[in-house]
Amino acid sequence: MSTGRINGDIISAKQFTREQMERLFDDASALKPVFSARKRLDDARGRIIATVFMEPSTRTRLSFQFAGVAIGASVIDFGSSDMSSIAKGETFEDTMRMIDDYGPDVIVLRQRVPGNAARAADMCDAPVINAGDGSNEHPTQALLDTFTMRELMGKVDGLTIGMMGDLRYGRTTSSLSYVLDKFDDVTVYYIAPQELKMREEVTGELHNLRYESVTRPDDIMEDLDVLYVTRLQKERFTDPSQYDALKGSYSITVDYLRKFKKVPIIMHPLPRIDELSVDVDALPQAKYFEEARNGLYVRAALLKQILNV
Amino acid sequence: MSTGRINGDIISAKQFTREQMERLFDDASALKPVFSARKRLDDARGRIIATVFMEPSTRTRLSFQFAGVAIGASVIDFGSSDMSSIAKGETFEDTMRMIDDYGPDVIVLRQRVPGNAARAADMCDAPVINAGDGSNEHPTQALLDTFTMRELMGKVDGLTIGMMGDLRYGRTTSSLSYVLDKFDDVTVYYIAPQELKMREEVTGELHNLRYESVTRPDDIMEDLDVLYVTRLQKERFTDPSQYDALKGSYSITVDYLRKFKKVPIIMHPLPRIDELSVDVDALPQAKYFEEARNGLYVRAALLKQILNV
Amino acid sequence: MSTGRINGDIISAKQFTREQMERLFDDASALKPVFSARKRLDDARGRIIATVFMEPSTRTRLSFQFAGVAIGASVIDFGSSDMSSIAKGETFEDTMRMIDDYGPDVIVLRQRVPGNAARAADMCDAPVINAGDGSNEHPTQALLDTFTMRELMGKVDGLTIGMMGDLRYGRTTSSLSYVLDKFDDVTVYYIAPQELKMREEVTGELHNLRYESVTRPDDIMEDLDVLYVTRLQKERFTDPSQYDALKGSYSITVDYLRKFKKVPIIMHPLPRIDELSVDVDALPQAKYFEEARNGLYVRAALLKQILNV
Repeated sequence: MSTGRINGDIISAKQFTREQMERLFDDASALKPVFSARKRLDDARGRIIATVFMEPSTRTRLSFQFAGVAIGASVIDFGSSDMSSIAKGETFEDTMRMIDDYGPDVIVLRQRVPGNAARAADMCDAPVINAGDGSNEHPTQALLDTFTMRELMGKVDGLTIGMMGDLRYGRTTSSLSYVLDKFDDVTVYYIAPQELKMREEVTGELHNLRYESVTRPDDIMEDLDVLYVTRLQKERFTDPSQYDALKGSYSITVDYLRKFKKVPIIMHPLPRIDELSVDVDALPQAKYFEEARNGLYVRAALLKQILNV
Repeated sequence: MSTGRINGDIISAKQFTREQMERLFDDASALKPVFSARKRLDDARGRIIATVFMEPSTRTRLSFQFAGVAIGASVIDFGSSDMSSIAKGETFEDTMRMIDDYGPDVIVLRQRVPGNAARAADMCDAPVINAGDGSNEHPTQALLDTFTMRELMGKVDGLTIGMMGDLRYGRTTSSLSYVLDKFDDVTVYYIAPQELKMREEVTGELHNLRYESVTRPDDIMEDLDVLYVTRLQKERFTDPSQYDALKGSYSITVDYLRKFKKVPIIMHPLPRIDELSVDVDALPQAKYFEEARNGLYVRAALLKQILNV
Repeated sequence: MSTGRINGDIISAKQFTREQMERLFDDASALKPVFSARKRLDDARGRIIATVFMEPSTRTRLSFQFAGVAIGASVIDFGSSDMSSIAKGETFEDTMRMIDDYGPDVIVLRQRVPGNAARAADMCDAPVINAGDGSNEHPTQALLDTFTMRELMGKVDGLTIGMMGDLRYGRTTSSLSYVLDKFDDVTVYYIAPQELKMREEVTGELHNLRYESVTRPDDIMEDLDVLYVTRLQKERFTDPSQYDALKGSYSITVDYLRKFKKVPIIMHPLPRIDELSVDVDALPQAKYFEEARNGLYVRAALLKQILNV
C-alpha cells in the first residue's frame, strides 16, 4: 500500500504523483503554524543534510538549511567552489562520490550542468535533491510554487496560469509545468519572446495540461488566476539591443497592471531584477514573498518524508 | 517594572540605558568563568541565529557564532555575497525580507551602507543586531569595549579615554562615544588628523561626555586611563602622500610609549595593521586581546537577553 | 601508565608512537560499522570544533566537519579568507589568537606556510590539528593512509610501498614516510623525476624504513603491495616543457598497468587530475575512494581521543 510519502532522489518534477504532492502539501500546511511561531522540531536529530551549491544561491540554499535545522537535523555546507578541490580541477564525479562517502542522510545539490543532478543520484547512496541543475529543472521550486497556489486558491485544478519571461532557459517554469500537468483542467499561457519561448522538449512531456504560447501578456491578462513572472536575462540574448527592445514588455509595474480590469495573483521565484517592480509589492495580489516563505514549509516537509522522520 | 533586560533590535549604541548596560555587563561577567572553562549552556536550544555578513569580518562574525553555539542555539550563516543572490543583483530589501521570512530568532547583520541596519530592522520581524553598518555604528563593539574598561578598572565613571585614528569614518569610535556618554564624569580626547576628525553629527548627540579634539596624542598621553587605537586607512585620504606623512604619528610602538612617564591601558577593536606594533603586545597595558575575548561574553549575554533565555 | 590515547596538538606525523597509532586504528575500525549505518554518536555534545582552512580544501575540511558532527560536536567554520580580516591585512598570529580566545575545544588548521601549524600550536590554548601546512606535513592524511593499508592487508609490517609523483613538495608523502617509519620491515620506493625527488630533510629523519629513490615505476612495479600516487603539479616546474615530457610517465592508466603481471593496491590522497585515470576506478585494486572514506573514521576517532570523549 502506497502511503503517498516521497522518498529517494528528487531529480525531476515529473516524478511526483498527484497523491504524493497532495500529501506533501498537507504536511507543509501543518508545519506552517509551527514554524511561524518559531517552534522547532526534534524529529531529525542526528541526521546530516549536506548542502552542495556549486552555483550562487541564497533562497534555495538558506531555505533548505533553515528547514533542516528547524526539523532538528545538522547541516554541513560544501562551501563555495573556489575554496574547494574543484578549484584544483577535481571532477564533478569525484567530488560527489567523496561527499556521498562521508555518509550524509541527504544531499541537496545545485549544479550548473543540466542533467548533473541525475548523474549525482546515479552515483550516490544518499538521496539527492536537485536544487536546480542549469537550465533543466528545479523540482522543489515547482512544489512550493504549486503549494502556494493551493494555499491561496484552495485548489490547483481549474486554474489558468501565465508563465512569463525566459521560458527557454528557465528551469523553474519547466518544472512547474510538469507539476501542473498532474492536476486537472489547468491552462497555462507561456508568455515569452520568440527567441526565449518554452522548449518543445518540455511541452512534449505534458499530457494533461492545456497550454498556449503568446508573445505578449496583454490579451490574456484578464483570463489569468496567476501570473508567474521570471527573469529575462540579458546574457541570454545574442544581440543585446534585442534585450533592450524587449525588456519593457516583460516588466510588471503597477502602472502596467492598472490597464486591466482584473489583476491576477503575482508570483515570482525570486530573486527579481527589473522584471517585477517593487511598487507591485504593495498590491494585495503580490504573493511572491509568501511564496518564498512557503519554500521553508515545503522543503521541511519534503526532508521529513525523505528522512522518514 | 523594568528589569533592565535588552530586547528587540540593536541598531545604535545610543539606545541603551545605563541600567541596561550595567545589567548586561553583570551577565557577561557571570559567563566568563563558564566559557573560560569551555562549558556550554543549553538555554537557547532550538533557537536559530542568522549571521548575515555582507562585508568581510572575522572577529565579529566568529564571536557571534561562538556565542550563539555556546548558549545552545543553532547558527545559520548567509555565506559570502558572491555565492548569493546578491551576485545576481537582488536588492538589500528583498534579501533581508527573505531571510526574515524563514523565521530566525535573531538576525546579526553587517552591511556596507550606513543606516542599512535600521532599514533592515524596520522590515524584519526578527530582532536585528547591527554588527556594523558602514561608517555609521557598531553598537556591540562599543558594549564590549566599555565592558572591558569596567572589568579592568572596576568602573567607567571618571575615566579619561583617548580615541585615536580615523574618527571621521570609524564606526567603533562613534558607538563608543554614545555608550560612554551614559556614564558620569568621563572625558574623551579625540586624537585625529584634521581630515579625519570626529564628525559633529556624533558629538552633537553627546550630552554628558566631556570631549576635546587634538591632532597629536603626545600632550595628553599621561592624562589617559585608556588609549583606544583604531586604524588609519590609506584609502580614506584623497592625497596618498598625506597618509604617508601622517601615519607615523598615529602608530603606537614600545619606543613611542617609552617617552611617557605613565602608559595607559591600550585597547584596539582589531584587526590592526601598522597603527599598533606587535612589540606592544608584551606590555602589561596591552589589553586588546582580552578586549576581543570579551566580545564572546558580551555577545552571548546580549543574545540571551534578546532571545529571553 | 600510558593508555596510548593521543592528546594535545597534532603537528607532525613524527609525533605518534606505534602504540598510539594501533589504538587509534582500532578505534577507527570500531566506528566504521556505526557510521556506515548512518548512526551518530552523542559523545562530544557541547564541544566546539573550529575548522580554519586558509587554503582550498574539500576532502579534509568536509571529513573533519562530518566527523565532528557525527560524534555530536558543533562545528564553527572560519569561512573563506576573502570574507575575513585576513582580507584587511591581519596577521596569521592575530587571527589564530583571536580564534583561540573564543574557546574552541580543538582547532583544525590548513595553512599555506610550512611550519605555521606549529606556530599556531605554540600560540593557542586549544589543541591544534595540522590539516596541511604548505609542502611540509599532513599528519592526519598519513594516519588514514596507513589505516587503509592495515584494513586492506591486515598489517603494515612488511609492506612494500611505492610513492609516486611530486615528492619534493608533497606533504602527504613526507608525513606517510614518518608514519611508516614506526612500523617494521617496511620498504618504500620513492618514484619521482630528479627535480621532484624526496627531500633529504625527510629521509634524514627516517630510522627504521628501508627506502630507495627511482625515477620510473616500471622496474619495481611488481614488487609493490601498494602504489601511492600523488599529483605532479605543472606549476612546480621552472621549465613547463619538462612537465609535458614527464607527465606521461607519472600517469597511471589501465593500459599502463596491463603491462605488469601483478598490479598493486592503488591509493591516492585525492583530488586527482591527470595522474590517475578514471578507467582505473573499475579495477579491484583501486582503493582511493575507500581511502578517502577512511578519513571520516580516522578523524572521528582522533577527535574523540583529543576531546577525551
